[in-house]
Amino acid sequence: MNFKALAQKYKTPLYVYDFDHIKSRYNELKDAFHARKSLICYAVKANSNLSVLKLLAELGAGFDCVSIGEVRRAIMAGAKKYQIIFSGVGKSDDELKEALENEILMINLESEAEMYRLESIAKELNLKARISIRINPDVDAKTHPYISTGLNENKFGVDITTGKKMYIYAKNSPHIEPIGVHFHIGSQLTNIEPIIEAAGIVSELVRELKALDIDIKFFDVGGGVGIVYQNENNVSLYDYAQGILGQLSAQDLTIVCEPGRFIVGNAGYFVTSVLYEKFNKQKRFIVVDGAMNDLIRPSLYGAYHDVNVVGKNTSAGLCDVVGPICESGDFLAKNLNLPACESGDLLVVKSAGAYGFTMSSNYNSRARAAEVAVQDGEDRLIRRRESFEDIVALEKDLM
Amino acid sequence: MNFKALAQKYKTPLYVYDFDHIKSRYNELKDAFHARKSLICYAVKANSNLSVLKLLAELGAGFDCVSIGEVRRAIMAGAKKYQIIFSGVGKSDDELKEALENEILMINLESEAEMYRLESIAKELNLKARISIRINPDVDAKTHPYISTGLNENKFGVDITTGKKMYIYAKNSPHIEPIGVHFHIGSQLTNIEPIIEAAGIVSELVRELKALDIDIKFFDVGGGVGIVYQNENNVSLYDYAQGILGQLSAQDLTIVCEPGRFIVGNAGYFVTSVLYEKFNKQKRFIVVDGAMNDLIRPSLYGAYHDVNVVGKNTSAGLCDVVGPICESGDFLAKNLNLPACESGDLLVVKSAGAYGFTMSSNYNSRARAAEVAVQDGEDRLIRRRESFEDIVALEKDLM
Repeated sequence: MNFKALAQKYKTPLYVYDFDHIKSRYNELKDAFHARKSLICYAVKANSNLSVLKLLAELGAGFDCVSIGEVRRAIMAGAKKYQIIFSGVGKSDDELKEALENEILMINLESEAEMYRLESIAKELNLKARISIRINPDVDAKTHPYISTGLNENKFGVDITTGKKMYIYAKNSPHIEPIGVHFHIGSQLTNIEPIIEAAGIVSELVRELKALDIDIKFFDVGGGVGIVYQNENNVSLYDYAQGILGQLSAQDLTIVCEPGRFIVGNAGYFVTSVLYEKFNKQKRFIVVDGAMNDLIRPSLYGAYHDVNVVGKNTSAGLCDVVGPICESGDFLAKNLNLPACESGDLLVVKSAGAYGFTMSSNYNSRARAAEVAVQDGEDRLIRRRESFEDIVALEKDLM
Repeated sequence: MNFKALAQKYKTPLYVYDFDHIKSRYNELKDAFHARKSLICYAVKANSNLSVLKLLAELGAGFDCVSIGEVRRAIMAGAKKYQIIFSGVGKSDDELKEALENEILMINLESEAEMYRLESIAKELNLKARISIRINPDVDAKTHPYISTGLNENKFGVDITTGKKMYIYAKNSPHIEPIGVHFHIGSQLTNIEPIIEAAGIVSELVRELKALDIDIKFFDVGGGVGIVYQNENNVSLYDYAQGILGQLSAQDLTIVCEPGRFIVGNAGYFVTSVLYEKFNKQKRFIVVDGAMNDLIRPSLYGAYHDVNVVGKNTSAGLCDVVGPICESGDFLAKNLNLPACESGDLLVVKSAGAYGFTMSSNYNSRARAAEVAVQDGEDRLIRRRESFEDIVALEKDLM
């Protein structure tokens, strides 16, 4: 990856995505489940750029969406509607209506109340809503509390007893057709044991449902496969797939999985220019033109991202990499060993393909970065850098 | 404030600002310094809506900006250029150039390296750059670590020794004119002692500079006056102003202060609709249509915001208020006593005028909220709600 040429051509701060890497990650995961019917539904929230979605749609991916905006993005990028799943704890009536009208694969229910609302909307539209139910298996994913979702104390899904009751109701409703079961216990899991444990619990539920004549076709294991940011375990996809399949034995089910970070995380780079180095007594800072409005993971989750200085290797000791935003929480990295930097040097923040640009904001009236794809040795702009005019467009005429 | 009518007219999620309250807060602060020359420079980063800036410009406020985007906003809203200050640890060459060309009041320097860059840019433009220097007085502001900025271990400003050296260099440069001194030790301070202590330290520096024939005219005490979110101290503006003035004694200085949160924080309300209530075993959740992409303070800083349910008072026990975003970090409030809610009920999140909309993002492909002003009993839209087309505008044609 020639970051210097990319930075000259597109300026900084800049997001760069390696489309070849995205492609190979998708194929690896698809291959891991090759012995069974499977559908890889990419989790749009990780990186929702239309060109990323288009690449994945062309590879045959389905899409896991958590807002109607994401459903629209997927359709705009060429997704097949019958490969789209709509999940999320807070779908509005308008969103449910639009999802039904688009005849997507299924709507993933997260509560009883939502089921009743969906039923009445489907009734109005004279449609039958295909659904799955998100089961909360009460398994501890052992990840950051903000991205751990499989315990009863959080907002996601329903417990097994409630789930079973909902499936029975759904089966008897003329406007709901239960076709799937879903769980997702957390994000960035580097130990697959909790997923396999959860699969076993939910697989048992599917057996009970089949005995009740409720014909579950899709077994959706969610996402959550972790990636390497620093020194994490590299998850074995073979063990992951075999572990899940081992819990299903002879049941005729299509495996659905919803990888986001796994597909795009390591494919992305956040490129930023050094403004200057600064020493405050003992402490060394590298001040760069990228900031927490571009990449909030370090500040929000205490996330680690590896950083390279282009063309330099010799460490000049520990430093913090900080941005121009006026708060101490504005940092991209802390206590890294990095070379001495001069104004104009390029820093590359690695593993920034997931939850990078999608969480970016205009805080401090900073324009959001451009996004660039590199594929087969060619680079191209896939989202234009924001201008000041873009930022004030929705308020300028209302002043 | 008739939130029901506002929600019906403008939909939710929605930001509502009480312009009368903003006006009275500005006037209170201006009055507190009435015995001295003073300039209240509103900190644009707290809430940068153009109509908010226009209101303050009309009242005579100056503006504290931390990016060229904020400088442009201030000018667009009608600010007098000679009342604009440009601060921040990471100003780019282009930003410094544009600020100089606009002949703003002064550029607040945060490091030696920045001074040399500014000098060479001013030389190229054949201009003299009016500057202040941000002094880091090494005083503990005792606030959240992310918004504490007065200690030597953080990225802001320079220590007194370095500052003095810079002032002497600046005085002797034909392209720099030192006219101000600046400090800002942190945000949301509810105890004014640290500010007064810092003012004393910096005032002593000004005396030394005057003895060296360096004519400081502006004594910029930064911002940081806290507001009441829950049960914080109400800061006495009289004590605040008198405490600072007491440190200056007979020196002929114009006091500059840079309030952001103090002016707009309590003037803002984030209005969101209930989607439904949900119980996961013991735990009660109110799921609303607003989320961490709209208001990230609870998630990022663990900030407390008071929440009211419109038209309901009787508590139904403890609950979390959560949004539709797919992570456990998506909450607006935790463990609040709130009434039982039904779909369509309105929740009002209070004290949301500062660091609310300005930090909002499109995470989960959610459109950013509309902003509304209420003034003299009349309401008006001051920023239109984003549409899906707005969200994909910069990437749609590049797919």
